[in-house]
Amino acid sequence: MRSINTSTTLLEQYEKIDTPFMCVDKNKFINNLARLREKTESLGSTLRPHFKTVRALEAAHYLLPEKSSPVTVSTLKEAEALATIGYNNIVYAVGISTPKLHRVQKLVSQGIDLMVLLDSVKQAAELNEFCHENQCTIGALIEVDCDGHRGGVLPKDPTLVEIAQLLYRGPVQFAGILCHAGESYECFDSLSLQNSADNEVKVARLAANTLKKHDLRCKIVSIGSTPTAHSYQDLSGITEVRAGVYSFFDLVMTGIGVCQHSDIAASVVATVIGHNKEKGWVLIDAGWMALSADRGTAGQPKDCGYGLVVGDNGEPIENLQVTGANQEHGLIEAVNGGTVDFSEFPIGCRVQILPNHACAMASMHKEYHVFDIQNETYDIWNRVQGW
Amino acid sequence: MRSINTSTTLLEQYEKIDTPFMCVDKNKFINNLARLREKTESLGSTLRPHFKTVRALEAAHYLLPEKSSPVTVSTLKEAEALATIGYNNIVYAVGISTPKLHRVQKLVSQGIDLMVLLDSVKQAAELNEFCHENQCTIGALIEVDCDGHRGGVLPKDPTLVEIAQLLYRGPVQFAGILCHAGESYECFDSLSLQNSADNEVKVARLAANTLKKHDLRCKIVSIGSTPTAHSYQDLSGITEVRAGVYSFFDLVMTGIGVCQHSDIAASVVATVIGHNKEKGWVLIDAGWMALSADRGTAGQPKDCGYGLVVGDNGEPIENLQVTGANQEHGLIEAVNGGTVDFSEFPIGCRVQILPNHACAMASMHKEYHVFDIQNETYDIWNRVQGW
Repeated sequence: MRSINTSTTLLEQYEKIDTPFMCVDKNKFINNLARLREKTESLGSTLRPHFKTVRALEAAHYLLPEKSSPVTVSTLKEAEALATIGYNNIVYAVGISTPKLHRVQKLVSQGIDLMVLLDSVKQAAELNEFCHENQCTIGALIEVDCDGHRGGVLPKDPTLVEIAQLLYRGPVQFAGILCHAGESYECFDSLSLQNSADNEVKVARLAANTLKKHDLRCKIVSIGSTPTAHSYQDLSGITEVRAGVYSFFDLVMTGIGVCQHSDIAASVVATVIGHNKEKGWVLIDAGWMALSADRGTAGQPKDCGYGLVVGDNGEPIENLQVTGANQEHGLIEAVNGGTVDFSEFPIGCRVQILPNHACAMASMHKEYHVFDIQNETYDIWNRVQGW
Repeated sequence: MRSINTSTTLLEQYEKIDTPFMCVDKNKFINNLARLREKTESLGSTLRPHFKTVRALEAAHYLLPEKSSPVTVSTLKEAEALATIGYNNIVYAVGISTPKLHRVQKLVSQGIDLMVLLDSVKQAAELNEFCHENQCTIGALIEVDCDGHRGGVLPKDPTLVEIAQLLYRGPVQFAGILCHAGESYECFDSLSLQNSADNEVKVARLAANTLKKHDLRCKIVSIGSTPTAHSYQDLSGITEVRAGVYSFFDLVMTGIGVCQHSDIAASVVATVIGHNKEKGWVLIDAGWMALSADRGTAGQPKDCGYGLVVGDNGEPIENLQVTGANQEHGLIEAVNGGTVDFSEFPIGCRVQILPNHACAMASMHKEYHVFDIQNETYDIWNRVQGW
C-alpha cells in the first residue's frame, strides 16, 4: 500500500505478493460496516447486508454479528456456503426460477430460513405447486417496483394482492415485500438522492399497507441500495435495509456522494511494466482481468475511466486515470490537460488503483489480500465463486 | 441449446445444469481451431495459440497438438498450469517485472522453454542481472510497437538494437521480437483490416532486418491478433502467429468480419425470471457476473449491448439485445424500433446469449459446460484462475 504507513512485517508481506492482486484495507472495511449498521439501527430498523459484494466466508462474521443475523444473497451458491458455517436467515434476492427450488428446499430442510423472491403469478403458482408436491414450506417475498429500474410489480397493481393471496392460501409462507431503489445510482446530488430514498420508503409502505387492507400482513418490509441506505431519515414501517457495496465502497459511490475516496476499502495493486513517453502512457500489469471491465462512472459527472491511481497522501492523483484496459494490461494516462510525471512511475514500481465498482472488481479475484494496519495482521479471504 | 438439435441424453444433461452457465459448442470450437491452424501453416508459418481465452487444461490438447507446440500465455499461472501437463514451449506475452522472474526461473529449471517479453533497457538490464545472480538463462523477446496500440519500441528506435545487444551480451538468450496489432480491433472493413495485417507483417520484418544488420538474429519473429491472423497473405520472414479469441469467437469478431455468428462457440445460457411488459423488458438471471461487463461492441458500427439472443434458427434474433446488466440480472429489450414478443419468452424458459467478448465472458466462469453434438458427449472444462 503505497500510501499507507505500516509495520515492516506487513510491508514485507505486501511486497511478497505478485501483482496484480486485490487488496482489502480491513480497518476501512470494518468502519464502513459499522457506519451503516449504526445508522440503520438508530432509525429502529435492521440491517440485512448483501453478501454479493464480499462473498468470502472469512469476512462473514464482520458483516453478520450473529448466526441468526439477516443476510441477502444474489446466488444460491452464496446461501449454500453461508449455511455451511451456520447462517440461517437468508433472502435470495433474484427472481426465483422453478428448477432452482430443489436447492432451496434442501437448505430449508436443514433449518435455514431461506426466502425467495418473485413478482409474477406464474412464479407464485409454481412455488405453491412445488411445495405441495414436495410437502415443504418455502418463504417468499414479493418484489415491488419503486422506480422502474428492473423487476417488481407496481405497488398499486392488483397483481400484488393476487400474488400475495395465492401465496397466503398455498402452503408457502407469504413473508412480505422487497424494494430496491436501483435508480439511486443515477443520483448525483443530495436532493435527488434524498428523493430516491424517500420514494423507496414510501412505495414499500404503500405496498405493505395495500396488502394489510386485504388482511395480508408483511412480516418483512425490505428496502435498500447502498446510496439510499445512507440517506433514509425515517424508517417506520420498514423492517429491514439491504446494501452490498457499502462494505468496500468504490468510485461510483464516491460519485454519488455517499463516501469519500478515503473510505474505499478495496483496491488493485499493480506493477508498472512499461512507458510510452511519446503517448504519455504508463503501462501496468492490471487489465480488466484484475480491475473488471465495469465502466460504472462513465455516466457520472466525473468519469474515472477504469480506476484512479492513489498517490502518496492516500488520495487519487489529480488528472490521472486508468484510461484503457486489455486483458492483462492497463494504461494510465493524464486527463483534463494534465501530464504524467514518469519519474513518479518508474518501471517496476507498484501502483494502487481504486475501482469503479467494487462488486465487479472483487468478482475478478478468487482471493483477496487483507491487511489490518491497526492490528498488524494479514489474511487471505477466499471468494465463494459460481452460482 | 435452444437452437441445436441434439440427442435426448445431451438435452437432459443440458436441462439439469442450473442457469446461468457458460456453454461451449465443442464442434464449433474445434472448427475454429482448425481454420486458423490450416491458414497459418498453408502460409508456411507456425501457430502459437494464446491460452488466455480458454485457460482450461482439458482444452489444451485441442489448441496444442504436441507437448512441444508453441503456446502464448498472459499470466505465469497459465504457464505453470500448462507445464504440469507437459507443455514446454511458452511465451509469456505481458511485459516482465523483475519480482516475477523467480517463478519464470523455476519453470526454466524444469526444462520449460519459457520466454519473457520486454521493451525497455531497464527490464533487459534487470533480467541480465537476475540471470547472472541466479546462474540461469531466460529467453526474452523484445516487444515492437506496430500500430501505437499499447507497448513496444518503434522498429526504427535505436533502443531496439540497444536492448537486443544488451540481452545478446548478457547471459540471457535474445530470442527475437514480438508484435501485436491491437489496433486491428478498430477495423470494420476488409481494406483497413488488410492494411492492419500487412502493416503488422511489415513492421515485424523491418525490426528483424534492422537487428540482422547488427548481427542480431531473431530466432522468433512473432506477430498476431485474431483479426489480423485471419487476414495475412504472405508470412515470409514471420516465424509464428499468435491469436486467442479465434478459438471461441464472439460478437466483436463478427463485427470486425472475421467470423459469422454461427462460428461463435461460447455462449451463456440463462433463464427468464421476469417480464416488465410496460417497459418491454424480459429479465433473465444472467447479469455481468455471467456475461461480463465488457462492452466491446459499443464502438462498433453494430452495438450489441451486453450480448445477442439466439433464436430457433441458431442466428441472433433481429432487433433484440441484452441492453442492461446488473450483477445477476440481465435485461433483454427490443432495439431499432422492434418489439419483444413476450410469448416467445415465457417466465422459466431458457435463452442463449452470444457474448461481446469471449475472453471476458469466459473469465467470469470457473467452469465451462462443453457439448459435443456430433459425438454426443458432455464435459466440464475447469478454468485456470488467477495470476
